[in-house]
Amino acid sequence: MWVCSMLRGSRVVPGLLRQGLPPTLCCRLANYSVSVEPSRVRALIYEHHGDPAKVVELKNQELAAMGGSDVRVKMLAAPINPSDINMIQGNYGLLPELPAVGGNEGVGQVEAVGSGVTGLKPGDWVIPASPGLGTWRTEAMFSEETLIRIPSDIPLQSAATLGVNPCTAYRMLKDFEQLQPGDTVIQNASNSGVGQAVIQVAAALGLRTINVVRDRPDLQKLTQRLKNLGADYVLTEEDLRSHEMKSFFKKVPQPRLAFDCVGGKSSTELLRHLAPGGTMVTYGGMSKQPVIASVSLLIFKDVRIRGFWLSQWKKNHSPDEFKELILTLCELIQRGQLTAPTCSEVPLQDYHQALEQCMKPFVSTKQILTMC
Amino acid sequence: MWVCSMLRGSRVVPGLLRQGLPPTLCCRLANYSVSVEPSRVRALIYEHHGDPAKVVELKNQELAAMGGSDVRVKMLAAPINPSDINMIQGNYGLLPELPAVGGNEGVGQVEAVGSGVTGLKPGDWVIPASPGLGTWRTEAMFSEETLIRIPSDIPLQSAATLGVNPCTAYRMLKDFEQLQPGDTVIQNASNSGVGQAVIQVAAALGLRTINVVRDRPDLQKLTQRLKNLGADYVLTEEDLRSHEMKSFFKKVPQPRLAFDCVGGKSSTELLRHLAPGGTMVTYGGMSKQPVIASVSLLIFKDVRIRGFWLSQWKKNHSPDEFKELILTLCELIQRGQLTAPTCSEVPLQDYHQALEQCMKPFVSTKQILTMC
Repeated sequence: MWVCSMLRGSRVVPGLLRQGLPPTLCCRLANYSVSVEPSRVRALIYEHHGDPAKVVELKNQELAAMGGSDVRVKMLAAPINPSDINMIQGNYGLLPELPAVGGNEGVGQVEAVGSGVTGLKPGDWVIPASPGLGTWRTEAMFSEETLIRIPSDIPLQSAATLGVNPCTAYRMLKDFEQLQPGDTVIQNASNSGVGQAVIQVAAALGLRTINVVRDRPDLQKLTQRLKNLGADYVLTEEDLRSHEMKSFFKKVPQPRLAFDCVGGKSSTELLRHLAPGGTMVTYGGMSKQPVIASVSLLIFKDVRIRGFWLSQWKKNHSPDEFKELILTLCELIQRGQLTAPTCSEVPLQDYHQALEQCMKPFVSTKQILTMC
Repeated sequence: MWVCSMLRGSRVVPGLLRQGLPPTLCCRLANYSVSVEPSRVRALIYEHHGDPAKVVELKNQELAAMGGSDVRVKMLAAPINPSDINMIQGNYGLLPELPAVGGNEGVGQVEAVGSGVTGLKPGDWVIPASPGLGTWRTEAMFSEETLIRIPSDIPLQSAATLGVNPCTAYRMLKDFEQLQPGDTVIQNASNSGVGQAVIQVAAALGLRTINVVRDRPDLQKLTQRLKNLGADYVLTEEDLRSHEMKSFFKKVPQPRLAFDCVGGKSSTELLRHLAPGGTMVTYGGMSKQPVIASVSLLIFKDVRIRGFWLSQWKKNHSPDEFKELILTLCELIQRGQLTAPTCSEVPLQDYHQALEQCMKPFVSTKQILTMC
């Protein structure tokens, strides 16, 4: 069972039984893989859901032998995202069959390709096309169709953090309202990975951002950092509840789009400041509170509430559309319009420190596991 | 000031300053009207916002003289809707300039028309094309464009209650999701005026309704009454929270559309039972609580939350589109597919009794003021 899961994990979208992978595929792949000699890799594996600091362990793993459509990838760097933590805790809309390798995002370099692989060659940089590949490991055998080639002239940290947060930011900016240059967008959790990507992508599209953050000791420093990324306005949650917002919105157009990663009162406030007919898109619930929406705003101001989940977007769109999105973002990176969030690189074996760091409040540095 | 308001009230959308009626129009109409001899009418008038039972008074009013585009209407019947109450209390998205005549809906009969009126003749039945005309009076002078002619072969109570609730029900069933015959719709406050119209219009469209009501002493009687209207399923709020809903939704398809007139926990439960990608439309907030939406349903099930307000729909659509809607509903009435909610007819002078009755909880009988 263990070998079966691991092999499946490294070959196709692994063990995402809630997505409906047929059980027979597991056995077929396992039988198919064990016939060729294995090589050894190190991987961060969890056998049970729970506190990541307790259930994740660094283990040796056998690499599956290469099939015709397979690609051997040396992982270079992989971030720890909030959704990775939620997945390990068992609180996520997609859960892998256990045991599983952690991590859904990252960048690797192709080392070798099977005889049937046509779109990739050794030396190429690749990122996962789907969540659930298990990126926290030194090396893996993936099917060609689970990978997307990206330019190798972009910074490693940008490449490693490209596949989730910037994609989420870009799609949320494009898919809910037809905005014009000069229009405003409001968001909370503006210092999150998605928040920072929203600031930069919005600026590249000519949109202005109103960025809400929690008050904190180093607020000035944070404000400056977000403004350096392209933030037009940075406000605290308290500012947003103050009467001064009335005069603020005499100078600044009311936003037709809001991004909510918090829920609770923070979502109520975002809704309150939306322009009539505007949309709030919820993509996270950091406060662990539900979205709370005034009935009169819904009825009389026609505000709209939606959710966004990149995995669902990918289900509803072709792999080519996702590749196109990735390449659009790579162009922004190449033009200097999109940078990685502030990252702290941590060698794979120091994963304990990285996981603990991720779960502290007010941490604005993304932990990136490095394998190179 | 008094005369000015009253005259304006009886001629165009009256005193709805929040809708932006230019102040000059008030004076122009007032001057224009007072030049012709007045006749006396009785009207329910409020000079201040507050408890309807206290601020509404029956007064004599002078009828404006007839202009070329005017229509003299003898009011026949006019309901007391929750939105009328909210408007008198001052808790509504549209508020008239005070003093104002109460009532936004009703049916009247044309008595005489001005020389420039082409679309109406004496004897025609008419209903208001817009809210704010002030229908709680025996007689009024209205501009032709503020009226819609309807067939006079439909029941008086249906005609009097046609312009708000059935329109809301029809538009909510049509404008948010593309449903097919056999699909289900869920709603709370199923015994409200809109709720009863939803049941009947949905049945006429071949849709099945899941109708949630508050538990009450005469639940069986209410259930039977709603089933007689065409309700497929009637459940209490408690039923909706029970585990048995799982087996219920094995037999019945999950709804892609929900109508919420309550907010609070009731809205949370409606959302929980929506099919993935489904929409909840909030059109009232009877619990006086905000809509409370699970973040994970928004993100992982892509449920959507919208609001609906007929006045906004009318702003966004042409008068002809509203007339078409009214005539579609009249056809349903003529075919016996749409009846008025259970009504209690109260002579205009007994308005105190009717207003008090409206504000009691669990009242399922609509109060209709009659002038004929």
